[in-house]
Amino acid sequence: MQERTTYCGLVSEKDLGQEVVVKGWVQKRRDLGGLIFIDLRDREGIVQVVFNPEVSQEALKIADACRSEYVIGVRGKVVERTGSAINPRMKTGKVEIIAEDIIVYNEAKTPPFVIEDDQTISDDVRMTYRYMDIRRPSMLNNLKLRHHVTRVIREFLNDNGFLDVETPYLNKSTPEGARDYLVPSRVHPGHFYALPQSPQTTKQLLMGAGIDRYYQVVRCFRDEDLRGDRQPEFTQVDIETSFLTEEDIQAYTENMLSKVMKEVMGMDIPIPFPRMTYDDAMDRFGSDKPDTRFDMELIDMKEAVKDVDFKVFQQALSSGGAVKALNAKQAADKYSRKDLDKLGEWLAQFGAKGLAWVKVEEDGLKGPIAKFLVDASDKIIETTNAEVGDLLLFCADTDSVVAASLGALRNRLGKELDLIDPDKFNFLWVVDWPLFEYSEEEDRFVAAHHPFTMPKESDIELLETSPEKVYAKAYDVVLNGYELGGGSLRIYQRDLQEKMFKALGFTKESAESQFGFLLDALDYGFPPHGGIALGLDRLVMLLAKKDNIREVIAFPKNSKAADLMTSAPSIASKEQLEELSLSVELED
Amino acid sequence: MQERTTYCGLVSEKDLGQEVVVKGWVQKRRDLGGLIFIDLRDREGIVQVVFNPEVSQEALKIADACRSEYVIGVRGKVVERTGSAINPRMKTGKVEIIAEDIIVYNEAKTPPFVIEDDQTISDDVRMTYRYMDIRRPSMLNNLKLRHHVTRVIREFLNDNGFLDVETPYLNKSTPEGARDYLVPSRVHPGHFYALPQSPQTTKQLLMGAGIDRYYQVVRCFRDEDLRGDRQPEFTQVDIETSFLTEEDIQAYTENMLSKVMKEVMGMDIPIPFPRMTYDDAMDRFGSDKPDTRFDMELIDMKEAVKDVDFKVFQQALSSGGAVKALNAKQAADKYSRKDLDKLGEWLAQFGAKGLAWVKVEEDGLKGPIAKFLVDASDKIIETTNAEVGDLLLFCADTDSVVAASLGALRNRLGKELDLIDPDKFNFLWVVDWPLFEYSEEEDRFVAAHHPFTMPKESDIELLETSPEKVYAKAYDVVLNGYELGGGSLRIYQRDLQEKMFKALGFTKESAESQFGFLLDALDYGFPPHGGIALGLDRLVMLLAKKDNIREVIAFPKNSKAADLMTSAPSIASKEQLEELSLSVELED
Repeated sequence: MQERTTYCGLVSEKDLGQEVVVKGWVQKRRDLGGLIFIDLRDREGIVQVVFNPEVSQEALKIADACRSEYVIGVRGKVVERTGSAINPRMKTGKVEIIAEDIIVYNEAKTPPFVIEDDQTISDDVRMTYRYMDIRRPSMLNNLKLRHHVTRVIREFLNDNGFLDVETPYLNKSTPEGARDYLVPSRVHPGHFYALPQSPQTTKQLLMGAGIDRYYQVVRCFRDEDLRGDRQPEFTQVDIETSFLTEEDIQAYTENMLSKVMKEVMGMDIPIPFPRMTYDDAMDRFGSDKPDTRFDMELIDMKEAVKDVDFKVFQQALSSGGAVKALNAKQAADKYSRKDLDKLGEWLAQFGAKGLAWVKVEEDGLKGPIAKFLVDASDKIIETTNAEVGDLLLFCADTDSVVAASLGALRNRLGKELDLIDPDKFNFLWVVDWPLFEYSEEEDRFVAAHHPFTMPKESDIELLETSPEKVYAKAYDVVLNGYELGGGSLRIYQRDLQEKMFKALGFTKESAESQFGFLLDALDYGFPPHGGIALGLDRLVMLLAKKDNIREVIAFPKNSKAADLMTSAPSIASKEQLEELSLSVELED
Repeated sequence: MQERTTYCGLVSEKDLGQEVVVKGWVQKRRDLGGLIFIDLRDREGIVQVVFNPEVSQEALKIADACRSEYVIGVRGKVVERTGSAINPRMKTGKVEIIAEDIIVYNEAKTPPFVIEDDQTISDDVRMTYRYMDIRRPSMLNNLKLRHHVTRVIREFLNDNGFLDVETPYLNKSTPEGARDYLVPSRVHPGHFYALPQSPQTTKQLLMGAGIDRYYQVVRCFRDEDLRGDRQPEFTQVDIETSFLTEEDIQAYTENMLSKVMKEVMGMDIPIPFPRMTYDDAMDRFGSDKPDTRFDMELIDMKEAVKDVDFKVFQQALSSGGAVKALNAKQAADKYSRKDLDKLGEWLAQFGAKGLAWVKVEEDGLKGPIAKFLVDASDKIIETTNAEVGDLLLFCADTDSVVAASLGALRNRLGKELDLIDPDKFNFLWVVDWPLFEYSEEEDRFVAAHHPFTMPKESDIELLETSPEKVYAKAYDVVLNGYELGGGSLRIYQRDLQEKMFKALGFTKESAESQFGFLLDALDYGFPPHGGIALGLDRLVMLLAKKDNIREVIAFPKNSKAADLMTSAPSIASKEQLEELSLSVELED
């Protein structure tokens, strides 16, 4: 058969009367009044092919033997469909191909699911037969979208003088941050490389090397327990610049994302993006990545309830904590007492000891705790702007538990109450981050971003005395409640970097052995620098309006970090282990 | 200091009279007649900055304290240089900046080498301080060249409907081919991922998934002993297509490479590239990647020497081997007997037992073996087109030893005799490869390309009986004697793929356990497909006219697969090994 002249999905009225050659998969074969109809599918869509014994008896015979997912090529003439033959739901529904010739490239067993969207297919089956799952239009579109987004990002960065520099995947393991994937070395027995969690130090060294503007669309690896939007490997748009300010870097990021939204989604996103401080985001949304597509902000109830004789509130306030509320407008009827009990239980994962609530009725606040609030009723209604029909939800605890609980509750209610416009794309900068966060698990301060983040000048003197008070020159870009990326200016002075390591609990020796190469580099003429890294999977996922990054990754791992299609990971051979001087020690 | 207005290396006469802000590294500071001159360097080049006490006493004082590799910013006015102050060797040599303000961003210790090209610096020092090595103009230019090549390649493929699809780095280990780098799994103790040697099966599955045209600029990993042009990780331009012929794929490749040559090098490379069969290449050049920038082809001497009474020749011919020669034109005077003895010793690595030679003089052939050749002298001179002053070099052995030896000798003499025009870029297709090659080491046939390569239809029946006679639908693109890339049509029929595995020594079970996912996929409607993979590092190396890919990789490993800068690989902690259920077994 000759070369393909067009994709199935692109055959149109422009081709009327033309001979075309199309190649693809049999979506459907129908036998109708002596004719055979085949819906032929390729990556661009579906076209109807008609086999008519008057055109070719032989072609008809071959077509008759075709089944779903056979791979065929067809040569034929494009003709107009008329009357009821027109299919308005098909892009190519006004035309069809009258086949003159057909070739069967490959047959197919009956697939485990029909290659169509909106099928209910278990995740395991999808992953085992991913090559067929991807044939479905929605998956193909997700991968095309990803291609397009990446292309626009690259073009923007290329046009702005950023150099695409590849950094190594076989790196040195460093204990700071998430868990590394290790790669044993054969040449150096007992030694290991680590796959990069991000090329953070490497890209900083490129600034020391005078690259000035670097980018890379780069794979990163974290051996963490998986969640819906996490994978063992993920892709980062990694950017680093020298001599620029936070605002400069943010402006490049905004221009880049706005170009993506324009060229990929056809949407005008106003820039600059709104900015919110970290403290403000936590106060008002209980989240460092607020979804600003809907209101229902957290309301500080301290003033309103300070005299209320309700133990939970008083305990929280007297121990320096907070009492805050959400006003779920007109939601009183939508949540039964039982629903609210369940919400309370669900909130336990965020540390909340319970959920206090009242419904606003004509004759006042109603609900289990209403009796405690009688005297403060007016103030509560005023503070929450409550109206009849509203549901007020309270949380009283430490600042961080209140934020985490009401933040999560807000997001949940936003969805349940249908407050979110799915067509909105709300970009936001969260700025002025704390430099450290306290890790209960490790009983020490850890870097909120990473150990190379520049503190605000005015806070440097607090590094050793009050690390919890130090703010950073760090910024996250947030989209629709997801952290899309995080960046910062970096430390470029050796003494400051050493102080930072010390504050993180490094000894002089451990800092030297882990990051000596970076400290040394800072001695040899290092420019001020900073950058940002964006999660490509997450960006594409949000643009595709999906809620799992697996939908935008061709061959993802499952929730146990396994590839069901190829059965990776798998047992290594004795020879492989011997060459690596390794032995496996399994517990019984 | 304000934002940079331009790069140092881009300041030109267009800027005369303008105020500019530049930022970079101090290349040189000179004190001359009360003025301070600083050559300031950034990624685009160097500009001279003048500090004059009459302009700013304070700036002069700061400039006076600057040393090499200090990072500074300068604001000042661009003025013309006149007379002897003009530096014709500098791109910016007609102008200079009269500094009004200076800021020192960072100081620098004295670097271990001067940041200039053409320094003699040991490889170890370069690698340990790679961030300073890259500051040298030649390294920056190599990385810029790489960026540019990648950009043009991506643009070409994007414009031709190829989709950039990312494939996993954590894969299943397969024993076929080179040695895998393994990645132990924490979640599945005793199980390992493998880093991809190439995304070969994955990209084929993308064809099964209907992607139709795929590309990726992708890292690949091989745990092999290193050579000059090998690294543990390297980058491949990976391309796969459905429904296309060998010629179609070659044409895309040619158009892509010709665009690279045009846009990056400003050169017009004629397409289509010349084509040579594998057998021809071995016969005429003793190489499957002939350097066609010079002649001096291998000459078959069988006819000419068949009656010569020289044991070495007779043994080779009688046992079915070959006698071939090179005619090194006018090289007789350039190689002493001692030189030629050394060449003979050097050839031993290719299996040659010695090097026979004669020099062509006025009165006939001269040299140690000339006495044996007297009767055949005229025929030898005629066959080799010899003239007085030529040096004839003979090898007599099996076909493969003769090819390997004379092929290597040809390349060496080509360089030594200065026969190669370094400005030439000779692209070439080597086509019609054998499907298998015999591995002495494994005592079996192994795939010349890989186990998925499509045999020529007419040879399929020979798969089981005479594998050595089977040719493949495989093609390599060669540039200046380097294999730039290899490709093939792939097997898309399950039964043929099973036959291929059998011919490679797989059992039904081992084929199933290693490649069952691919065999299964072939059952479910797999299109005809094929592609090519190009070595990006090698391409850029050749365009940069370097002879080691380390010159075009930002942070390469050394010959022991180590990173001297960060000291990777390194010892893993006890906790890391425990989490992975591994223990290291070192020999004493």
